[in-house]
Amino acid sequence: MDLKEIRNKIDSIDDQLLDLFLQRMECSKQVAEYKVANNIPVLNAQRESEILDKVASDAGDYAEHARLLYSTIMDISRSAQYPYVCKNNSLNEVITSATNTEFAPKIVGCQGTIGAYSEQAALTLYPDCEIKYYPTFEQVFKAIENGEVDCGVLPVENSCAGSVVENYDLLMKYDMYINQQVDLSISHCIAACPNADMGTIKTVFSHEQALNQCADFITEHAISPHSMRNTAIAAEYVANKGDDTLAAICSERCADVYSLKILHKNIQTSSVNTTRFVVVSKSMSIKPDASHISVAFTLPHIPGALYRVLSKLAAFNLNLTKIESRPVKTSLFEYLFYLDFNGNLLDEKTASLLASLNEEMPQFKLFGNY
Amino acid sequence: MDLKEIRNKIDSIDDQLLDLFLQRMECSKQVAEYKVANNIPVLNAQRESEILDKVASDAGDYAEHARLLYSTIMDISRSAQYPYVCKNNSLNEVITSATNTEFAPKIVGCQGTIGAYSEQAALTLYPDCEIKYYPTFEQVFKAIENGEVDCGVLPVENSCAGSVVENYDLLMKYDMYINQQVDLSISHCIAACPNADMGTIKTVFSHEQALNQCADFITEHAISPHSMRNTAIAAEYVANKGDDTLAAICSERCADVYSLKILHKNIQTSSVNTTRFVVVSKSMSIKPDASHISVAFTLPHIPGALYRVLSKLAAFNLNLTKIESRPVKTSLFEYLFYLDFNGNLLDEKTASLLASLNEEMPQFKLFGNY
Repeated sequence: MDLKEIRNKIDSIDDQLLDLFLQRMECSKQVAEYKVANNIPVLNAQRESEILDKVASDAGDYAEHARLLYSTIMDISRSAQYPYVCKNNSLNEVITSATNTEFAPKIVGCQGTIGAYSEQAALTLYPDCEIKYYPTFEQVFKAIENGEVDCGVLPVENSCAGSVVENYDLLMKYDMYINQQVDLSISHCIAACPNADMGTIKTVFSHEQALNQCADFITEHAISPHSMRNTAIAAEYVANKGDDTLAAICSERCADVYSLKILHKNIQTSSVNTTRFVVVSKSMSIKPDASHISVAFTLPHIPGALYRVLSKLAAFNLNLTKIESRPVKTSLFEYLFYLDFNGNLLDEKTASLLASLNEEMPQFKLFGNY
Repeated sequence: MDLKEIRNKIDSIDDQLLDLFLQRMECSKQVAEYKVANNIPVLNAQRESEILDKVASDAGDYAEHARLLYSTIMDISRSAQYPYVCKNNSLNEVITSATNTEFAPKIVGCQGTIGAYSEQAALTLYPDCEIKYYPTFEQVFKAIENGEVDCGVLPVENSCAGSVVENYDLLMKYDMYINQQVDLSISHCIAACPNADMGTIKTVFSHEQALNQCADFITEHAISPHSMRNTAIAAEYVANKGDDTLAAICSERCADVYSLKILHKNIQTSSVNTTRFVVVSKSMSIKPDASHISVAFTLPHIPGALYRVLSKLAAFNLNLTKIESRPVKTSLFEYLFYLDFNGNLLDEKTASLLASLNEEMPQFKLFGNY
């Protein structure tokens, strides 16, 4: 047989196969309607596992391929069933109560001190807000919890340094929601006391990440780097010392705040350096134009479990923008997954997808839709 | 119809559908053999896209579901075809040359200084090795490149703090391979000069991550935390100062190295705190019992692209142990994916999976099989 003949045969198989698939989808719809009428959960793990074992044993050499095909078919069926059955899901209440909330914080919590990048992010979003500063991320979460601040503005990811996993852990621990995000372009300068110049500088202070991002500049000028907890704390330290051999790496605004002289601008190595900040608060708000959904979950112990979650996103054409796995702190063999994807929960199909994850994953947390 | 009747109908559909699927797989095998004989690549994106458009337009309300079904069927077909066609793949040369290499480093590069956790990791793997220390991770990579050291032992992930993304970036930049890994259980102690006790300590120095991991202890004892670039550098600093108000957070071994007195052991908050170190060198070595495969790649701009990669892993029953997406530094809309999964490249099916990724992804890098 030549290629054309084989392909004609495949096309003829595909016509019949598609017809059977569509019949099967109609049957699934009837199953869903029956389940809703009789208050039965959508996922019947035992029936699915029996079907998978049967097709695998009937498929001979293609056992694993047939198993994969059928787990996909059943995922697709279930995703088509959820719009019928998700009306009573507990997640719906969260979503419904969220959609009517107007979010306009007056007092915002940030980690660090005046001049930190978090302050820039907060002022970009809420130019008229009052900002309170806390030494650690967790203290910001505590301040949100006890009502000292209306929300927190916290970094979650830097394009060079990766995720700020501490803040993801705290979102889980304090059961809070993301209501907005802003990407801040990070541009570092080196700043020192008014009488200093590049010739007098021997030592530079900054946050470890900022020092790493400016490593080439630091090496070139043979300066000794010392890390501090925050770029703004470094600037404050240099300003208080009044010593012409010391400099800080920080933002231009931060140099201004502490009356330091800027010796060089844009000294970071990579031209693209962006930090994503999110607005965190006790309740969830969803705007009609919200386009980012963030979730976290653990997976059931079944083969290809993550692949099956992603098949749901693919079925609804939802674009994945971030994925990350992390070992669960209390158990070495369990993983927590963070997913960001594009979508709005006011769309019924998307809400039904979340409902299915909420029902099927051992742990599930919706961080927000913003 | 009741549930039993609908399910009988589904079972009858499944028998016919499976039969068609198996016929289709046989046709695909013939296509693969034809392609090998005529030196044609496996992936024919245009033909696949035509099939997807046709089934979607024939499927009415189930258009997206049919599209997803067929992209899965074609992925499964291709994964079954690769064992026939991957013989000539460029990745095969890398794998073949790697398998015969014996890896026994004599001189090992570490970041930091004597007493650092990297040193412990290196000595766990190679008890008799000589260790050279470098101030930054990149200087370790440079030392490997110019032959100063046989390999580097570098941290890539901590169970509390997440990935050390700088080392993943450097693996790409320097085109090096991972040949081994070791998980080191991290246990911090607080240590000070011989005459100090907890009552005299006012200030504690350590790496930022170690300070965060011991935040509860630090708060409880009302000590002021200061960050340094490395736990061992902090211990050295405290030892040199000889001041009874200062302490360092470091490993017990590190306290010994700098003759510090241990005031408290196991002061970290989380009981599970593990750092994964990898052995990096210029060439790749694959042992017959190697069980971890690490890869990085960018995705083609097609819907569900990541899902389709994971379907290949699922088809071969390969267990995913880590996944992470990161924005590519030079482009805001492209993502680099890191995947770890269990497998050995001496297995032909697994090698064919890697061959398919190498062929279909815009960028692909095999970090190692260890």
